[in-house]
Amino acid sequence: MAATERRNFGIYGPGDLFQLLRDGRPRTRAELVEATGLARTTVASRIDALLASGLIGPAGEAASSGGRPPARFVFRAESRLILAADVGGGHAKVALADLGGNILARHAESRRVSDGPELMLGWIIETALALLSEIGRREDELSAVGIGLPGPVEFSSGRPNNPPIMPGWDGFDVPGWFATRWPVPVLVDNDVNVMALGEVYEHWHESQDVLFIKMATGIGAGVICSGRLERGSEGISGDIGHVKVAGDEIECRCGNRGCLEAVAAGPALAAGLRAAGHEAVRTSADVVDLAASGDLAAIHALRQAGRDVGEVLAMCVNLLNPSVVVFGGALARAGDQLLAGAREVVYRRSQPLATRRLRIEPSRAGADAGILGASRLAIDHLLSPQVIEDDIAAGQPAG
Amino acid sequence: MAATERRNFGIYGPGDLFQLLRDGRPRTRAELVEATGLARTTVASRIDALLASGLIGPAGEAASSGGRPPARFVFRAESRLILAADVGGGHAKVALADLGGNILARHAESRRVSDGPELMLGWIIETALALLSEIGRREDELSAVGIGLPGPVEFSSGRPNNPPIMPGWDGFDVPGWFATRWPVPVLVDNDVNVMALGEVYEHWHESQDVLFIKMATGIGAGVICSGRLERGSEGISGDIGHVKVAGDEIECRCGNRGCLEAVAAGPALAAGLRAAGHEAVRTSADVVDLAASGDLAAIHALRQAGRDVGEVLAMCVNLLNPSVVVFGGALARAGDQLLAGAREVVYRRSQPLATRRLRIEPSRAGADAGILGASRLAIDHLLSPQVIEDDIAAGQPAG
Repeated sequence: MAATERRNFGIYGPGDLFQLLRDGRPRTRAELVEATGLARTTVASRIDALLASGLIGPAGEAASSGGRPPARFVFRAESRLILAADVGGGHAKVALADLGGNILARHAESRRVSDGPELMLGWIIETALALLSEIGRREDELSAVGIGLPGPVEFSSGRPNNPPIMPGWDGFDVPGWFATRWPVPVLVDNDVNVMALGEVYEHWHESQDVLFIKMATGIGAGVICSGRLERGSEGISGDIGHVKVAGDEIECRCGNRGCLEAVAAGPALAAGLRAAGHEAVRTSADVVDLAASGDLAAIHALRQAGRDVGEVLAMCVNLLNPSVVVFGGALARAGDQLLAGAREVVYRRSQPLATRRLRIEPSRAGADAGILGASRLAIDHLLSPQVIEDDIAAGQPAG
Repeated sequence: MAATERRNFGIYGPGDLFQLLRDGRPRTRAELVEATGLARTTVASRIDALLASGLIGPAGEAASSGGRPPARFVFRAESRLILAADVGGGHAKVALADLGGNILARHAESRRVSDGPELMLGWIIETALALLSEIGRREDELSAVGIGLPGPVEFSSGRPNNPPIMPGWDGFDVPGWFATRWPVPVLVDNDVNVMALGEVYEHWHESQDVLFIKMATGIGAGVICSGRLERGSEGISGDIGHVKVAGDEIECRCGNRGCLEAVAAGPALAAGLRAAGHEAVRTSADVVDLAASGDLAAIHALRQAGRDVGEVLAMCVNLLNPSVVVFGGALARAGDQLLAGAREVVYRRSQPLATRRLRIEPSRAGADAGILGASRLAIDHLLSPQVIEDDIAAGQPAG
């Protein structure tokens, strides 16, 4: 009874103590007793358990009134390795990180998600092994895996859920597949949520209410409310790409008409520019490059895409009242042209109270948002009080 | 240092123990030691502090292996009184509740919020005193006040924030005004948030992601994500009434054109019905009554209002992926006509994954949603670990 009841009320064992130490500041046993209200013997046994796990270590000596100075303990971010993977429609990136979210090594290349899960996941493992060898670390130091995929994912099970551009992935048990190779926790989420996590954790931690908009081959949003990623009841929040913004003459790949994606995502912009004579323009990056070269048609297309997404964003801003909207993804690298269109509509259509302090900004994490967020997903799970407590209980008698 | 640091990490003193007892189940000291991991002496002193505060009391005897049975302690919901007020544009309701949220007495009458804050708040206090006398309780038993107001409110300060239909209220210090009469916490929020809280707490507690839509003189939403009311960075989330759904020929009182409120709220429907010959139709209630009498124009107007709000709702459903959308407010009493229009558009426009288990339902709390939510606002504050700890520390040496 006790462990379950504790958890229901947010009260834990050694994992709780550890949340204090996670900030990186060294503390003595006496300071931890003072900070938690736990009994001295409880603190002592929990410290022992955390020392044995390697998550904390001794940290020099504290000032003392005399005699032998008391020991201090500090979080060891280097004690575990995280594997982070960011899978897009036509590219993939793998990284190793420590428990502080610092990227230690990375590798990116063109890979097609449509080749199916076994090829992609096999490549992720091969790449991880190569990166481990590159930085001279062991396979058994890997403690968790975080993966972002370009489609809806049921977060609780780690299975893609009817993803439109990922043949062979629907319902595929990604954590189960990994478990046969590495017995570590595997966290899987859609790419937009993962990018939102990476962006916010690294660059906007002072903001509690953030909308992250990804504009590339598709258009989606990551919703952060009160500092927490909100996935919704089915784990598919943020699906703004199929809101109707245009007339019925425009067909969308989803089966509906007039969807935001059908007019403002990379393929729609590229198709428009091809029709205007720029026959080589295929991808979001091509559109952005063409605009950067000063081509007026491309600049106008990006500006209009910003206005189109602005129509939907104005409503999101009224509904959620975020303090920051961050634009990421390959199209967002266009920067001002796109953002100016979005700002124009949001400031016209949203309520004045909702926009007086609103910022609409380009991504700061850029192309790293995905691996930063995927590692954060894994770290937040691995260092949660419940998981730490379970780990310690499995490894030795609990404190 | 310690108290602040504890709070930053969600670790408290006596208030923490109390969160376990809040479920109403009696527990012994030994059970509380087991459940919290706190030292026996700490549990004993915290129990003493909570007993002295009256928030818990003895609860009969537990089974024991022999000798004198150990004492058990239980939450006393009756130990404090809450004043809840639900202020609308043309009506107001005052209630007294216990700490379990049970309404002990209530009174409603026609009152104009446009008469200004001093008249309205003075009337709330007079009414509260009359209700106290009605149930034979004392003024000093009132421990917190919760108020819902029909406009934007800065929740942290309890001040209305540029409310459009509340002359004299802009920036008015509602908690400060009360403090000169009753030195108790006063929580103020907008009426839609308050109704959403009341509705969800009483009737949808198994749902973590809920959208509450109020349709009456205005149209607004209460956003519940992961079980928590999300107010946004300026406290004005849920402002869906001014999303554009119609052409520029329709003016809205907000200064924009084509807003949802300008075509689908009570005044717009009543004006349309007056133009069609129903000259006596003024309010949302008049529209609903006319439809209930079988008038086809009124039924069509409600159905179309449902479709109009459905256009906005379809986008909210894609963005937030709620499990339930609840319709409340005077227009929502029309029930099926309105909901059928909304369902029609949401099921057509939202993504299949977002609607496969979505429920769109009428309010269950009905006219009581406001007072239930206002009392919940006050109770959740009063029984939060931090407030309990502060209360106990102020009243006696802390445990």
